[in-house]
Amino acid sequence: MRNIKVVVSYDGTDYFGFQFQPRVPTIQAELEWVLSEIVKEPVSVCGSGRTDAGVHAAGQVINFRTEGTIPVDRLCLAMNSLLRRSVAAIDAIEVDLSFHARYSARSRTYEYSILNRAVPDALVSRYSWHVRNSLDADAMQKSAKVLIGTHDFSSFASADRDQTSPVRDLREIEVTRVDDRVLITIKANAFLRSMARVIVGTLTEVGLGLRAGSDMNRILEAADRRQAGKTAPARGLCLREVEY
Amino acid sequence: MRNIKVVVSYDGTDYFGFQFQPRVPTIQAELEWVLSEIVKEPVSVCGSGRTDAGVHAAGQVINFRTEGTIPVDRLCLAMNSLLRRSVAAIDAIEVDLSFHARYSARSRTYEYSILNRAVPDALVSRYSWHVRNSLDADAMQKSAKVLIGTHDFSSFASADRDQTSPVRDLREIEVTRVDDRVLITIKANAFLRSMARVIVGTLTEVGLGLRAGSDMNRILEAADRRQAGKTAPARGLCLREVEY
Repeated sequence: MRNIKVVVSYDGTDYFGFQFQPRVPTIQAELEWVLSEIVKEPVSVCGSGRTDAGVHAAGQVINFRTEGTIPVDRLCLAMNSLLRRSVAAIDAIEVDLSFHARYSARSRTYEYSILNRAVPDALVSRYSWHVRNSLDADAMQKSAKVLIGTHDFSSFASADRDQTSPVRDLREIEVTRVDDRVLITIKANAFLRSMARVIVGTLTEVGLGLRAGSDMNRILEAADRRQAGKTAPARGLCLREVEY
Repeated sequence: MRNIKVVVSYDGTDYFGFQFQPRVPTIQAELEWVLSEIVKEPVSVCGSGRTDAGVHAAGQVINFRTEGTIPVDRLCLAMNSLLRRSVAAIDAIEVDLSFHARYSARSRTYEYSILNRAVPDALVSRYSWHVRNSLDADAMQKSAKVLIGTHDFSSFASADRDQTSPVRDLREIEVTRVDDRVLITIKANAFLRSMARVIVGTLTEVGLGLRAGSDMNRILEAADRRQAGKTAPARGLCLREVEY
């Protein structure tokens, strides 16, 4: 039995998220179908985490176990010849049997992209959120810093989250402006459901002056989803990297 | 009667090209529908040129005449609130009645994007051609220079082109490498059907060493489409700018 780790990128626009669901396109189903074709046996794919419907990935990590004998240095080529163009295999290596894409991960880094100008751009609209009014990126950065550390992030997670602990360790958060783009990078040990998007939606309200920067601390302490801002659209969010 | 010039961007992936065709989505039909809604009368849109199915635009220029009274500084906002996300209005100004998006244009600039590395990238696959083997961008640049000037470009146009003159004035062509991207920028007074894509396909054969760089001159002089290389895929091509 071999255990293989693969880094994949995908355009999530036309998928119902990473995780398998019957009768709708998902990233997991696409990968499992392609890998099963290649190794000629059913394959179960384990991802580092479930990205929501419409969320993209530049560096999602998966692993799968197989009795198949395909050389690992030919796996990406074989996968890419079968995958739709909206999913790509970037790198594959054989790993120890103890490696688990989800449980072995030490942290995940997401990037959220906002196009901040008067008019939209059709060539980036699949991968960014268009915010017309001017954002104060410095104010967003300042208020974001409150979130760093180990906290109960209930205020920044979907109300319908499952019953696991709402405590996460947020390690880095950076808001930077590059011309008419505002990029928000967030690194944490793990993310609650919708957490990155609720943080971005709330910071955007600070950046628009609709909410005081000092609000962030109060929202965090309230542990109440109703205190935070709106959930930013999925299309601006991209899983950049998973660290092991 | 007013004459209005609008700069638009679009993701051409899901359209059957710029020009109207019955019963299929086209950029022209999308724009005419939206503008007719706004000015409350039928609108005919004239574009600087017809981009082929799957070709994108960052700066396509259109004009239309109307009796409508919408202030021109509100037109983009009105258009963008109705347009699909794959089309965006970037700038609108009122112009002299003599302005014609196609006949007044002095030149068009296209950019072709190649992802040149072993593995594809799902996040750029809609907007680039993935070429796996290493391209010699310097050799491509050197052989491309032969094309500059006023020539019969029959060798580099679809065999099914209409009966107008095949002579065009190619003013600039630049092949540059930026990390794993090879970008080919071509500026000409006007382009024959598929001309940019046949030039790119032929240059790519030079870059792969499948064809001598010195071939370019012979191909140009032959005025015979069969002498040139394959047509590069539409998805890598983008109309960057139209100059007036």
